[in-house]
Amino acid sequence: MSTTDLRAHRAADAVLTLTRGGEPLAGREVRLEQTRHKFLFGCTGFEFDALANGDSKAVERDTALAEHWEGLFNFATLPFYWGRFEPERGRPATERLLNTARWFAERGHPVKGHPLAWHTVTADWLLDLDNEAIAAAQVDRIKREMTDFEGVIDMWDVINEVVIMPIFDKYDNGITRLCRDIGRIPMVRMVFDAAREANPGAVLLLNDFDMSSAYECLIEGVLEAGIRIDALGLQSHMHQGYWGEEKTLAILDRFARYGLPIHFTETTIVSGAIMPPEIEDLNDHQVDSWPTTPEGEARQADEIERHYTTLLSHPSVEAMTYWGMSDGGWLGAPGGFLRADGSPKPSYERLHRLVNDEWGTRTTVATDAEGRVRFNGFLGDYTVTCEDTGAAFTLDTAGQADLTLDLA
Amino acid sequence: MSTTDLRAHRAADAVLTLTRGGEPLAGREVRLEQTRHKFLFGCTGFEFDALANGDSKAVERDTALAEHWEGLFNFATLPFYWGRFEPERGRPATERLLNTARWFAERGHPVKGHPLAWHTVTADWLLDLDNEAIAAAQVDRIKREMTDFEGVIDMWDVINEVVIMPIFDKYDNGITRLCRDIGRIPMVRMVFDAAREANPGAVLLLNDFDMSSAYECLIEGVLEAGIRIDALGLQSHMHQGYWGEEKTLAILDRFARYGLPIHFTETTIVSGAIMPPEIEDLNDHQVDSWPTTPEGEARQADEIERHYTTLLSHPSVEAMTYWGMSDGGWLGAPGGFLRADGSPKPSYERLHRLVNDEWGTRTTVATDAEGRVRFNGFLGDYTVTCEDTGAAFTLDTAGQADLTLDLA
Repeated sequence: MSTTDLRAHRAADAVLTLTRGGEPLAGREVRLEQTRHKFLFGCTGFEFDALANGDSKAVERDTALAEHWEGLFNFATLPFYWGRFEPERGRPATERLLNTARWFAERGHPVKGHPLAWHTVTADWLLDLDNEAIAAAQVDRIKREMTDFEGVIDMWDVINEVVIMPIFDKYDNGITRLCRDIGRIPMVRMVFDAAREANPGAVLLLNDFDMSSAYECLIEGVLEAGIRIDALGLQSHMHQGYWGEEKTLAILDRFARYGLPIHFTETTIVSGAIMPPEIEDLNDHQVDSWPTTPEGEARQADEIERHYTTLLSHPSVEAMTYWGMSDGGWLGAPGGFLRADGSPKPSYERLHRLVNDEWGTRTTVATDAEGRVRFNGFLGDYTVTCEDTGAAFTLDTAGQADLTLDLA
Repeated sequence: MSTTDLRAHRAADAVLTLTRGGEPLAGREVRLEQTRHKFLFGCTGFEFDALANGDSKAVERDTALAEHWEGLFNFATLPFYWGRFEPERGRPATERLLNTARWFAERGHPVKGHPLAWHTVTADWLLDLDNEAIAAAQVDRIKREMTDFEGVIDMWDVINEVVIMPIFDKYDNGITRLCRDIGRIPMVRMVFDAAREANPGAVLLLNDFDMSSAYECLIEGVLEAGIRIDALGLQSHMHQGYWGEEKTLAILDRFARYGLPIHFTETTIVSGAIMPPEIEDLNDHQVDSWPTTPEGEARQADEIERHYTTLLSHPSVEAMTYWGMSDGGWLGAPGGFLRADGSPKPSYERLHRLVNDEWGTRTTVATDAEGRVRFNGFLGDYTVTCEDTGAAFTLDTAGQADLTLDLA
């Protein structure tokens, strides 16, 4: 897949006509810069809690992390695991998380909440309730969070891992009990109805790690039942090795059939040893130390480039969220773009070049005699400046775009 | 699982009061015989085509096969693979198959047709049609067969292996094309609507080999879409080894959640070498010779006893169909109860004893002073005879049954 192919659906051929006071700005040097990609280059933002709440004990480190984060990403995912967000019933950790969400929103980065319903890391106190009360608490929880965060977070992984939810057998929990009782589709309907009611304008996702036909069957059942899904979330933790183009594209083809936007919601590619293939539940792989290695970092950089290129090559993909900016996150894996000491790996430099240079625009060009500039640019937001005046514009759809901008 | 546990839902405590001309038959010897189990002990009946059509070239062998068949079974499955049933469009092999079905029906054995819609062994000529025409041909085919066989075959595997149907990639075929186009649930709805319309009294099954959560998700979607399924078919070809009680019961528990009767539709347990575990599609295992062995036969007999006992222990299971009475069927596997030379294996003797002796009733008892006989018998049809008079009765539900029978 070459970048040329990507551009067919990711970029526009723009003709800008630049004027000042109605007169063409002919034969002038202008600066063109893309300020934001339309494609959602996402990452978790869990580590920004202290910085955003003004009580960081390592401001320099956290600030550097933030700079690195914004060097690659324009879209954040924040954690709403019920068991951590509201360990004691009635005392949700709304304020700190709202501050973190605002930190991203103020910088123009859309934020997604993850997840509103899930059987893992759910609230222990649900176990004291009967199923009817669990359902009521789940609905109330969704409405509360979506209302409290409305305008700051308007995109949600409403429900996570429904395929396994009613047969999850690692430990007893209220959500599995409820889902086993009422069934998967009524469960999805219940949480989506609550979410839609709470924030009708929000983008609502169904998210799963199960890439088998089970997830297809679930999606088909949900859609046949008339439940509106705004985007399909596909997890892709690759602790056991990079999927490769063929597998990735085959999965995309299968899940693109439903005509819904696809978000790669949780991607990890490690720069150290690969987890053995026989491990079925990644949580079963507990190691004392999982170091990043030079060979692993070189491989990770290549795989990052291949993976992002593959995803952008498929028109259905609207978002890609990387799971963990820094090493030492989930399972202690060396899955980050930054090492534990905060230094960028080759994968960071590689993706930075792709996002900002190869797929981004930062250039100085000359207008023609009619004040025109022609360029091919990835969809998103731009500024054009000429001397001390400028204008902002957006390329929103692939194909041709003709714009006239007056740089007053 | 002991036979005692089975009897809680498989048997009734019967009190028969026997009279003649209204007077109690006191202190008399009577013969009690179960003539038919309510549980459907099924087997394929593909090999009876020649015998039933009166053109067998080996009448003695075929008659012996029939006697062996009836020694174990009371329920037949007959083949409706579209590609073989109607290789040339408009020339279905209705007559011979109808004769075979009647051969079973006349002996009191219900017959199931398998399958009406499937992507494998489907008609090649579908490939010449567009998807709309394939759908119309599929609907017509269902209505034709169900009408032609009504009263002889009133139970159908309406559609087979829907989980994989739209993503089946071994070869191009019309059914996969259609299913990929319209989706799994509209496909199921289409074929079930046609089947229900053609024979409203028929028992209609959804059948699959996929025992993962994919089949659960499909079932939930189908039921949520309001499609009525009469029974769930679970395949269980065990060429790679007997499942064991734990796996079998876990599967039963998962699929019993829907409150539907469960049919084990296709069971094979081999009496020779076990197919390697890494083979995913059993069709990929092609061997020159796959012999039955003494050790394998001993193991098979034990596993047959364990498997039937496990299935009967679960109240949701209404039927168990063994796939191939004799060795040398699908894949050439030694999966039969009979060897290729027609001789019975230990598994035959074992199941014969279970069905007819341990779970059946053939006994002579004495009535008490009020003409009563008490016994615990598996659900099904019975005769009771005293000297040269007799009566037939049925035990249809577990628990207590009080019957008064006049042996005129």
